[in-house]
Amino acid sequence: MGQEFLNIMDPEDVKKIIEDIPITKRVENVSLEDSLRRVLAEDVHATINLPPFSRAAMDGYAVIAEDTFLASEDDPVRLKLLELVEAGDIPKKSLIRGFCTEVSTGAPIPEGANGVVMVEFTNKSDGDILIIESSAIGQNIAKEGSDVMAGELLLSEGSRITPDKIGVLSAIGMIMVPVYRKPRVAIISTGNEIIGHDEELTYGKIYDINSQTISSAVRSCGCIPLQTEIVKDDYNALKEKITEIEDVDLIITSGGTSAGTGDVLREVLDDLGVVLVHGVAVKPGKPTIIGKLDVNDNIFLFGLPGYPVAALMVFHVFFAPFLRKMASINTAVNLSDKKLLNMELSRRYHPARGRRHYVLVKVEDNKAVPILKDSGAITALAKADGFIEVPKNVEILEKGMIVEVFPLGDL
Amino acid sequence: MGQEFLNIMDPEDVKKIIEDIPITKRVENVSLEDSLRRVLAEDVHATINLPPFSRAAMDGYAVIAEDTFLASEDDPVRLKLLELVEAGDIPKKSLIRGFCTEVSTGAPIPEGANGVVMVEFTNKSDGDILIIESSAIGQNIAKEGSDVMAGELLLSEGSRITPDKIGVLSAIGMIMVPVYRKPRVAIISTGNEIIGHDEELTYGKIYDINSQTISSAVRSCGCIPLQTEIVKDDYNALKEKITEIEDVDLIITSGGTSAGTGDVLREVLDDLGVVLVHGVAVKPGKPTIIGKLDVNDNIFLFGLPGYPVAALMVFHVFFAPFLRKMASINTAVNLSDKKLLNMELSRRYHPARGRRHYVLVKVEDNKAVPILKDSGAITALAKADGFIEVPKNVEILEKGMIVEVFPLGDL
Repeated sequence: MGQEFLNIMDPEDVKKIIEDIPITKRVENVSLEDSLRRVLAEDVHATINLPPFSRAAMDGYAVIAEDTFLASEDDPVRLKLLELVEAGDIPKKSLIRGFCTEVSTGAPIPEGANGVVMVEFTNKSDGDILIIESSAIGQNIAKEGSDVMAGELLLSEGSRITPDKIGVLSAIGMIMVPVYRKPRVAIISTGNEIIGHDEELTYGKIYDINSQTISSAVRSCGCIPLQTEIVKDDYNALKEKITEIEDVDLIITSGGTSAGTGDVLREVLDDLGVVLVHGVAVKPGKPTIIGKLDVNDNIFLFGLPGYPVAALMVFHVFFAPFLRKMASINTAVNLSDKKLLNMELSRRYHPARGRRHYVLVKVEDNKAVPILKDSGAITALAKADGFIEVPKNVEILEKGMIVEVFPLGDL
Repeated sequence: MGQEFLNIMDPEDVKKIIEDIPITKRVENVSLEDSLRRVLAEDVHATINLPPFSRAAMDGYAVIAEDTFLASEDDPVRLKLLELVEAGDIPKKSLIRGFCTEVSTGAPIPEGANGVVMVEFTNKSDGDILIIESSAIGQNIAKEGSDVMAGELLLSEGSRITPDKIGVLSAIGMIMVPVYRKPRVAIISTGNEIIGHDEELTYGKIYDINSQTISSAVRSCGCIPLQTEIVKDDYNALKEKITEIEDVDLIITSGGTSAGTGDVLREVLDDLGVVLVHGVAVKPGKPTIIGKLDVNDNIFLFGLPGYPVAALMVFHVFFAPFLRKMASINTAVNLSDKKLLNMELSRRYHPARGRRHYVLVKVEDNKAVPILKDSGAITALAKADGFIEVPKNVEILEKGMIVEVFPLGDL
């Protein structure tokens, strides 16, 4: 009747085993456009000064500040207008005492000028400009390199590239961006009863759920899911499939892990490598399995339970942090990664005894409502917004207590 | 010297104007795989029963429950074994009293059976099965349709399609999914000093920052950015560009909105439609403009200030909610949308007077640290993790006070 579980392990010990798995990071260059949501693989230093030239920070008149020191509304200073320099123009004339140059915001400051008087503090008179407020030296001028000097560190390795960081890279005209390559994850759904969506649903069969679910969860963790076909719960078929997969960083299977008739994954792993985890003290998700292969570049294989709810919960709790780490996402400072929400529990709830229990909840009226379905139920997933974690020795969760809700949506 | 601001408006009034903009939603069908993170455009009803047949919820023996009522460890009930049915198999024989069928989890229940005894509560003896615990009627059987009946509502229109919902759609074998079409947003950077990343940086020019920044921000809001080229701050060039854009739901420009020399967008909008907003009482972002076109299917044009920090902040505060609404993202129940974080302010801060002030902050030691840079500074963006909103009448923010931080990263 198949093999027994290796040794039911404490969930925290399983997390530690996963944390210790070594990760190989690879770098690739992508276009600036495609770098959104990726993670910088190298420090980025400024290649130019910013601003690249001294420019006007306001619309107004570039002046020699000393000319304006006595200017006031009652006693304006009259300056001759040399020329108009708009943003993008190049000043043709240097400024000398008694003259000014009209500049628009972003225009280069003409040689000799050391201040810009805002247009609001000027008047026109017979083609001359009347200055009615003095300018301090450097006023309304953004000096070349005052924001960033060429060579300065702009963004550090490990930064998540969000729209604002795209702006930073644009400012120095970066076209290709070095980012960590997305890890490649092969996904195998096992089970004799599982059929693809393109097949006819005959008696005794069910549509493959986990391939697409885990595939999209893998993608949400910043990895590339490689969907391989469905494999029968057959020792040779599964062994052959696992052996023939190439150029991936991880294999994730679902199904075939129960200690029952169909338990072939454990046997295959025993032969192809070493089983590190088989059985975890959580509900749902007890039949979780983790192995390290001797074939296939010694990559790891994570085996999820076959039931969709159990598979997704185990993925969230144990595997998603590792996938994000592989994708370098967890190392990035990113406020929106902190997504735990504290909510009131809507009703009294009796968790499972003896195992850490992950309970799906929906959110109604800003309260967490436990979903009372087993892990085979699709309706549980249809209704769920998140889940809560209940330690194994808790007998009862009282109505109204505050629980931490982990959102299911974005991994 | 260009036009004055129409009428500096209160930011809340601007938000109301934006909220009232009508939205046309369009539907498209995408593959299940591509439906991740999209929004359902129709209710999805189950097309089949789930489970599609009555199946074993455990590895064990399908029995007629009445046969087992007196079973105990001391006095087991002996049953003859009819056959083995694994998941994916079809039972060949109906069950009659005195017999049992070995079943694995997920296997169809043979006709006549009304309970499954877990393998743990059985023993083998001379090819017969000894049952040592009674089975209740229906025990360990997931009946056809017990989870979902064909025709039942599974997911509602407006649901965000997360990995768990992909699982739900997979369960009924859905191949194409009706989702709301992503709105198309044309992006125009204006300015004579702006050059593309493929051009040579000559004196007086700066690299285009806003096209890529706003483009990736638009993408983060679930819309498709269509990047048009950079347009000079020239009335005819801008008018021609706006007129010739086709098949978009919105135009976003940046630059050309100050009340100064280069103020041409206002003039173009006056001629091509009507200006609803020109000037908002916020810092940064005062020169924000909103117009409705008479050409181009009466779509709206949102004009951002030219300075990158100002452009991104105005986008976040005023435009992103509208883009998400266009993309139907805000209507979806999604826990991770609630991303406000409460944090301690690291130091005393004096906000700008007379306008609502949005202050960029970085997060250090879980405290919000104000970034003391003006809105032209790229380094501000390089360091920023989020921003805080300061009402216009606040004179001082004290060190240690709790502020709400809006993350900049994911829109």
